[in-house]
Order: sequence, then structure tokens, then C-alpha cells
Amino acid sequence: MRRTQVAIVGAGPAGLLLGHLLRAEGIDCVIVERQTRDHVLSRIRAGVLEPATVALMRRLGIDTGLNANGIEVSGFGIADGDRTIRIDLDASVGQRLTVYGQTDVTRDLMDAAPARGLDIVFEAAGVALHDLGSDRAAVTFVHNGREQRIEADVIAGCDGFHGPCRRAVPGSAAASMEFSYPFGWLGILADVPPCSSEPIYASTDAGFALVSMRSPQRSRYYIQVPSDARLEDWPAERLWDELERRLGPASPGPIRRAPALEMSIAPLRSFVCERMRHKRLFLAGDAAHIVPPTGAKGLNLAASDAIYLAEALTLFFRTGEQGALDDYERRALARVWKSERFAWYLTKLCHRFPGDTPFERRMQQAELDAIATSSVTQAMVAENIVGAPL
Amino acid sequence: MRRTQVAIVGAGPAGLLLGHLLRAEGIDCVIVERQTRDHVLSRIRAGVLEPATVALMRRLGIDTGLNANGIEVSGFGIADGDRTIRIDLDASVGQRLTVYGQTDVTRDLMDAAPARGLDIVFEAAGVALHDLGSDRAAVTFVHNGREQRIEADVIAGCDGFHGPCRRAVPGSAAASMEFSYPFGWLGILADVPPCSSEPIYASTDAGFALVSMRSPQRSRYYIQVPSDARLEDWPAERLWDELERRLGPASPGPIRRAPALEMSIAPLRSFVCERMRHKRLFLAGDAAHIVPPTGAKGLNLAASDAIYLAEALTLFFRTGEQGALDDYERRALARVWKSERFAWYLTKLCHRFPGDTPFERRMQQAELDAIATSSVTQAMVAENIVGAPL
Repeated sequence: MRRTQVAIVGAGPAGLLLGHLLRAEGIDCVIVERQTRDHVLSRIRAGVLEPATVALMRRLGIDTGLNANGIEVSGFGIADGDRTIRIDLDASVGQRLTVYGQTDVTRDLMDAAPARGLDIVFEAAGVALHDLGSDRAAVTFVHNGREQRIEADVIAGCDGFHGPCRRAVPGSAAASMEFSYPFGWLGILADVPPCSSEPIYASTDAGFALVSMRSPQRSRYYIQVPSDARLEDWPAERLWDELERRLGPASPGPIRRAPALEMSIAPLRSFVCERMRHKRLFLAGDAAHIVPPTGAKGLNLAASDAIYLAEALTLFFRTGEQGALDDYERRALARVWKSERFAWYLTKLCHRFPGDTPFERRMQQAELDAIATSSVTQAMVAENIVGAPL
Repeated sequence: MRRTQVAIVGAGPAGLLLGHLLRAEGIDCVIVERQTRDHVLSRIRAGVLEPATVALMRRLGIDTGLNANGIEVSGFGIADGDRTIRIDLDASVGQRLTVYGQTDVTRDLMDAAPARGLDIVFEAAGVALHDLGSDRAAVTFVHNGREQRIEADVIAGCDGFHGPCRRAVPGSAAASMEFSYPFGWLGILADVPPCSSEPIYASTDAGFALVSMRSPQRSRYYIQVPSDARLEDWPAERLWDELERRLGPASPGPIRRAPALEMSIAPLRSFVCERMRHKRLFLAGDAAHIVPPTGAKGLNLAASDAIYLAEALTLFFRTGEQGALDDYERRALARVWKSERFAWYLTKLCHRFPGDTPFERRMQQAELDAIATSSVTQAMVAENIVGAPL
């Protein structure tokens, strides 16, 4: 049996950021992760950081990789197949986005863990929670073939959408709201310069396409595909052809092709569980909410949850007072709903929905016109893409 | 047989404004209207004028009634049952709206017609169009039991959604886009001070409600009802009760009741015919497009169509050049789509749709939060409600 102040379930961005924030306050914690380190790092996820997330990495002093390889972008494009509207973030909100992969963030946080006394137990099988009402709340799991138990004042559920923690919150299902989109994203990662140095969201007659990048030499493209699309029906050449067709004249440069480092199809889902706490258990990140990838809010919400929860826990351990803990859910959800709304807005703006009428396509085009011609509408988009203040 | 420069079909706001604008330029025109004058004036319609529409009435010098009885409002409310967010038009865009009924606008324009040589033929039955490809395009109809024919250089179809002019444009059906909303508006007009001196759009769990007014002593309220609602199932008391329930604490004052001067149920429709011209025939106003009443754009679009068309016709008659005529459709549609988009946005924000999930209700609430907390989002709403520049 081991004793700690905060047992964190999950070594994704939410758990790792929370762990580092707590360690920086001298709070004892340990992270329990079901997968191997390599498996966690093999997951290709979003790659755009809000200023608040960048500031967090800097505050933690885990910014060497970010400073060396992060790409600041001062704008992004919204295209409709004929034109690209540039949202000038500098001019609209005086803030920038940073292109830096979630995989890189995760690796940097893992690499920095040992020196900061942040213990991560990988390959913890069969994680279960116990005694959440007491200050001997416990996480049990099997590690190296042996049953382990960690007792803690507080447990942080950072174990993602499919993890066990949300299910340990009574009433979480009833407090959950969900919207499943009738399409997915087919993505390709390739070592070739992207056709644009800034991300481009394309809302075309044939559906959505996204230009993004991991570095000046590594492209990440996506296209909208039907929900029932199968990867085996999409050889890379078909994807490149379709991408070219959708971006059309909106592409600022040629779409250069290279062998796929990775291809995958991801479903799109909006999900919020409004119950983020049960007694000594607190949920953070994907365990409590999912955004569709449009707008790249997922990682950034994990970061804000971690910040709010670390603040609350720090106050709690310092003073013994419950007030900040009681306020965590409200603070986190307020920001979550803002991002959910924007991800929904941008998804609706850019994707073709089955059953959409020509009128509904015109509404998308009229919204694009409004963005193109109205500085306050542009500023509305800009302030949402850089993220709400904490 | 009679000869004129512009034969205008329809004596609603589009036709009347166009007629006055043409007369002000010394262009000969005549309006042909199917209904009686009293019937036209008995139609209860919107009552909020954009600054551009007010400026037009002033420019025409038909503003005595407007100046005496129009109510300038410097803001309006968006409520969600718990709170009312005030959109401050003065602060956001430095422009105001004017509450003045469409009935009053129409009556003022009719009253001013004789002195300005604007002839209106009421009770013209069986209006038909002929020879649209020639400069002897003709309108025929039966008036006082006798067949009449008016030949004109140009015919303006201002005869509303159900009139014959749009159907005389080949391909108009194929160029039309429509969205029907699965609900209607139940309205009541009553001589009693409204509960608010400014309009309030309420987006509540039980559906939409609207506080509006025709004067400080005359209230106009609406509530969303199912598409199949029947007037006989809605005695006034039931409507008043439901209104009170929806506005709830968002009502800034008591909802005073009085006998209904009028009650009616109107369907909501978005419709745009992108073909607004065929040879010598030009469509304007509801003949070419319908907006749902949310945002009060219908009358204001009729006004901007009239302005664009009058400008084009004035140039044409002065110079004989076709360019301005050729450009009318593009100019008009650009503004139409902006208003269509905003009416759609405000309708989606405020109404409950059958089949909406709790997640979708949260998206409405999150949009309201964005409006409440973001000055640029407020400004976006404000600049749309006061209308696009001409």
C-alpha cells in the first residue's frame, strides 16, 4: 500500500499537467496509466495550443521543445473552395496560436516528470476506485502481476472518455449530454511541407477539409468522410486527390504528396458530463467532456481543467477549506461550454450534413461572407479560436 | 390601354417605396394592387425599422407619422427565462432601431401617393404579365368589371410570395431555396403598455417568446407554437398565461392584459429566389424572398430592394444603359443573404426545435453566454440587427 495526496488516473495531457502543477506546489501525487509510455505517445492528436496552454507550459518550465519546435501562427484561413478568408489574430485579438503536437506536449511532460518527483506508473491494469467518501480514497490496479493499492486524499480522474472514473461518479450518465456528428475525419500525416504555413479550415460543396501541420516539414491533412467510411477504401492517393479537389483554388500552394506516416478515421462527438465531482473524486479533460476536433479545443480544455483543479487542490491542502474544491466544477464547466459552443459552430460551418438542403449550404456561405466582411464577426471567431481567458 | 415607364405589381411596402422613389426622379409609374386599400392596411406585420429604412422615409419626405409616432430604441433584450441580456445599440454600433408598424408605413406611403402623382389601382383582379422581352411589356387585369392593359418599359414584381410575378420568371422555381420551420408564431395585439420599453427576444426551455410594441400603449406579443396549432385552441387567456410563464423573471415589468385587437398564427419560412429578373421584369421584396419574422428583416429588405431597383431604373431611363439593371440582382441578393442568415441565426438561437437534444439547448445557452460576456459577439448581433449598409 502506498499513500499520496493526489492519485491521478491517466497520463494524458490532463493528468500530466495536473501532476506537474501539483508538484510545483510541493503536493505529493502519483499518476497511474493503463497503457505503456510508447502507446500513449503513439496517439496522434491535435496540435494547436491556445496562448493559455503555452503560458502554462512556460510557467511549468517545460518549454524547451515548445520554444525550439513550436510554430507561432498569427492567423488562419477559412476557405470555401473559391476563396480563403484570413483571420488575422494579431489584428483582431493581439494573441497567437502555437502549432505544437499533443504528442510532443505529452512527451515533454513525461520527460520532465522524474526530475520533479512526479511518479508515473505505466501498464496499470484493471484500475478501480474505492472509498471515495473518505480521506483514504483508493485506487487499485495490477502492475507487474501484483495487486497494488494507492490511498489518497483526492483522486483525479484524467483517464479519458472511455476510462473508469466518470462511471464512478453517481448520476454522471444522467448529467451527460451528447451529440454525435454523422461523419468522421480521415487524417493523413506525411513528411512534406504543408500547402499553407497557417491552418486552413475549408467548407466546400464536397465537405470539409483541413490543412494543418506539425512542423514546417510535416503536414497533417484531414477530410470529412461519411460515418461508415472504412480506411481500406481510402488508399492514400484517393485521399490526396480528394483533398486537392476540395481545397481547389483556395489552396495557397501545391499540395505535395509523400507516403503516409499515419492514416486514420476518427468519429466526431460533442459530449459534456456536467457532474465533474463526486466526493473525493474529480474529473478533468476527456473524462468529462469531448469536443469535435474542429477548432482544436480538446487539449486546451484539458489544460484549463488541470489549472482550475490544481488551484483548488493547492488551496485545499494549504488551508483545509473546501470552498475552492466546491467551485471547481462550475469554473471548469463555464469554460468547457464556451469551447463546446465554438467547436460546434465551426463544425456546423464547415461540414456538409446528410439531409442538408441547398438553403442550409447558403447559410454556411452567408456566414463565411459575414466573417469576410465584418470585422466584429472576424473578432468573434478570433477570440474564440485563441480561447477564453482563464 | 395605358402607357407608363414602370408598371408596379403590388401596393405593399416594396411597391409603394419603389413607386415613390421613381416618382421623386420624375419617372412615370403606376401601381396595380389585387386587394382593396383597407385589406392591405389590415395586414398586421412587423414593426421595427432599420436606420436605412428610416432614412429612406425621411429622404422621401414621408416621415410626419414616423416622426410623431415612431419610437427610437437604443437597445433590445435577449432573455433565456432567467436573465435578460441587453444589446446596447448605441454603444455597439452607434445606430438605433425605430419601432413603427408596417401598417403605418404602408398607410403613410398610400396617403402621400396622390400628391406625388403615384397612381395606385386597387382591386385589380387576375393580374397577368405579357411580352416581357419587349419595351411594350404589359400588365393586364380586370378592374371595375373591365379588362385593362398597361404597357411599360419595365415591370416591377412587388406582389409578395404568392403573387404571379415570380412564376413569370422562367427557372425561378429551380433557382429557389427554402427552409420551413417546424413551428409558428401565435401573436396578440392589445391596447395595453408592453412589459418592456424595448423588444425582448426570449429563448426559453418552453420555446420562444417575443415582447414587442406598436406604441407605448399598444403591445404586440408572440409565442412559438407547434406547426399544427389552431387558433381556436388558444383563447387569449391561455396565450397570456403561457407568455407569463415563458418570460418568467426575465420580464422587466408586469405583463398587463387587455382584450385582443388581433390574434393570429403565422408560419415561419426562409425562402430566396435567386433569379430576381427576367428580361423587363424585376422582382422585389417578398416576391423574391421571405425571412422568418425573427429579427424583423422582411420590411427592411423590401426597402433595400426598392432602393437598389430605383437606382438601377433611374440610371437606365436617364442613360439608356443596361449595366445598372444587370447589377440589380447581385446587389439585392448580397444584402438579402445577410439578412436571411441573421434571421436564421436568431430563429435557431431562440426557438425549440422538435427533436432537439438537451445538448442543443445547451448550445443555445452557451451562445447566449457568449453574447452576454463578449463585447465583439454583442457587436456582431448589434450590427446585424440594425442591418447591413446599403
